Amino acid sequence: MSKFTGKRLNGITPYVAGEQPQDKQYIKLNTNESPFPPSPFAQRLARESAGDMLLYPDPEYSTLCNIAAEKLSVKASEILFTNGSDEALNFAFIAFCGYDTPAVFPDITYGFYPVFAALNGVPKKVIPLKDDFTIDVKDYFNAGGTVFIANPNAPTGIALKKSDIEKILINNPENVVVIDEAYVDFGAESCVSLINKYDNLIITQTFSKSRSMAGARLGLAIANESLINDLKTVKFSTNPYNVSRMSAAAGIGAITDEEYFKTNCAAIIKTRAAFTDGLKSLGFTVLPSTANFVFAKNGNLSGEKLYSELKTRGILVRYFNIPRIKDFVRITIGDNKDMEKTLGAISEILKVIK
Amino acid sequence: MSKFTGKRLNGITPYVAGEQPQDKQYIKLNTNESPFPPSPFAQRLARESAGDMLLYPDPEYSTLCNIAAEKLSVKASEILFTNGSDEALNFAFIAFCGYDTPAVFPDITYGFYPVFAALNGVPKKVIPLKDDFTIDVKDYFNAGGTVFIANPNAPTGIALKKSDIEKILINNPENVVVIDEAYVDFGAESCVSLINKYDNLIITQTFSKSRSMAGARLGLAIANESLINDLKTVKFSTNPYNVSRMSAAAGIGAITDEEYFKTNCAAIIKTRAAFTDGLKSLGFTVLPSTANFVFAKNGNLSGEKLYSELKTRGILVRYFNIPRIKDFVRITIGDNKDMEKTLGAISEILKVIK
Repeated sequence: MSKFTGKRLNGITPYVAGEQPQDKQYIKLNTNESPFPPSPFAQRLARESAGDMLLYPDPEYSTLCNIAAEKLSVKASEILFTNGSDEALNFAFIAFCGYDTPAVFPDITYGFYPVFAALNGVPKKVIPLKDDFTIDVKDYFNAGGTVFIANPNAPTGIALKKSDIEKILINNPENVVVIDEAYVDFGAESCVSLINKYDNLIITQTFSKSRSMAGARLGLAIANESLINDLKTVKFSTNPYNVSRMSAAAGIGAITDEEYFKTNCAAIIKTRAAFTDGLKSLGFTVLPSTANFVFAKNGNLSGEKLYSELKTRGILVRYFNIPRIKDFVRITIGDNKDMEKTLGAISEILKVIK
Repeated sequence: MSKFTGKRLNGITPYVAGEQPQDKQYIKLNTNESPFPPSPFAQRLARESAGDMLLYPDPEYSTLCNIAAEKLSVKASEILFTNGSDEALNFAFIAFCGYDTPAVFPDITYGFYPVFAALNGVPKKVIPLKDDFTIDVKDYFNAGGTVFIANPNAPTGIALKKSDIEKILINNPENVVVIDEAYVDFGAESCVSLINKYDNLIITQTFSKSRSMAGARLGLAIANESLINDLKTVKFSTNPYNVSRMSAAAGIGAITDEEYFKTNCAAIIKTRAAFTDGLKSLGFTVLPSTANFVFAKNGNLSGEKLYSELKTRGILVRYFNIPRIKDFVRITIGDNKDMEKTLGAISEILKVIK
């Protein structure tokens, strides 16, 4: 840090994203991207908007909000589009947490929550997952702060049922509950239909995973108008034009092309089932995933070892050097061919190390 | 505000951007966009990257940084690209201001500085411009906080000389000085060459004005490595992938197409001179501008009146209901045809109100 740095950056450890090495072509299963290209219609609308770059976007992104609202069966005023869902999450930390309102989240979850807390000077209340890596909903009743739950959770892939999240919502009348649905399209239950049943619910979603648009940086928050207006106060106090014209146009295309989206999600779910079976037949414990990744371990080699052996073979997966989960690797579900190659490589590694 | 809002949003008044009415087609001279389309090469690279959206961008944006570094004669490690220059400015407020380190800026300047200060809980030290709307550099010596100066200033268009900014830098050994060069390409002197002469200098620039890319959301900070690393700590603690792939690709094209950029800037400067002469011949006082807008007033009608009369005639300009400048309007320099129409409309308005 420079000598000019203010106290706010003291002790900050930035988020560490999955590596993106440039040395050679890898089978990239480490950052939960989609193996499928963005919808052809999304690509077309993005391309067609390139010439409009000279003008600022509509800061309300009205066309995009209207189309998303129709698809989600909510009002356009109940949606805020953001520069990836990370921005929506950060806005929620800014709007609803403070030195006297901690952020409450599991010990094993999306690694950005503690970083957002640190940057915003927000205390953390970290609640351990149970031994089977599930959430005990009672742990979050009257949480004494703003609750952040990824559903399905990352990197475990395990989802709570909608009825369980309702219990958390009912038992936090004074606290906002943020449900981070980055991976919800791969088999978990969305809570979007609950935004007007509970006045304390915010959903965040992303176009980075199921919509194949990680490079476009498009996410959204969905909540009742009052909570969305709070998030808008933050947006209009940081970056009114937070989404580029091309990404907004691509978003319109991706939402419109529902068939393509559904086909891709179904393919990932099918491949995940086959890959999970393959891992189990190689002696792995695989947590039950409703995400586009699996979290798995094998008693015969550590997470770090499996990660590095796979990297040598041109396959990138993610390994977390964190207590309780360091025996695991998180493997993104790619296409069938990539997952078959990955199973083959793992099988080979297991033979070599024996 | 909802009942859940934390103290941080108390009393926040978000930034108000220029209006973007959808009711009809206007000659849009209110948000300082370029009248020229983005460089054809920038458009082409943006279009070609649409299919790559499935993958996250390189969070270091290495290719873009390398090309910008070459053009600016700095090192790639001395550049940070951001989601518009507003994001770079906000990062500087987060990194270098605090409850004990105020933000120091003129009373009449970019309206987002006080908003960033409020959102980040940073006290303000507001220094009045002189009666002629210029900055007295001595007012900023040992400023007792982080200095933010737009150069040229907005909405006045008046620039400080590089040698004057050096005086401010020399006389603030303990304070960061942020020079916001959003409009520098239209005739002012850039301070980029000073980043290694003074350890306290940060420059911000944008692709929204001279590069015709307001809709792409691309800005940058340029400073010595130590200060850039501080800003990177903020970026990697909020949104590691802050710029979309298509906007980064467009940025590469826009920087490469130097000829197009220079031609457009020269055209704006030429049109500005003619438009300024025209306004003066209609009895206006026009501040000396080195930006892509002029700030002007006419004793016969208020800023608000001129704004509303022009809007009736399909021409949008900006008027600020702020002490000292409410007699002025800020008029973006468009193409020759639009500026001739605007002069004609103003001439007509002056006749009608007499």
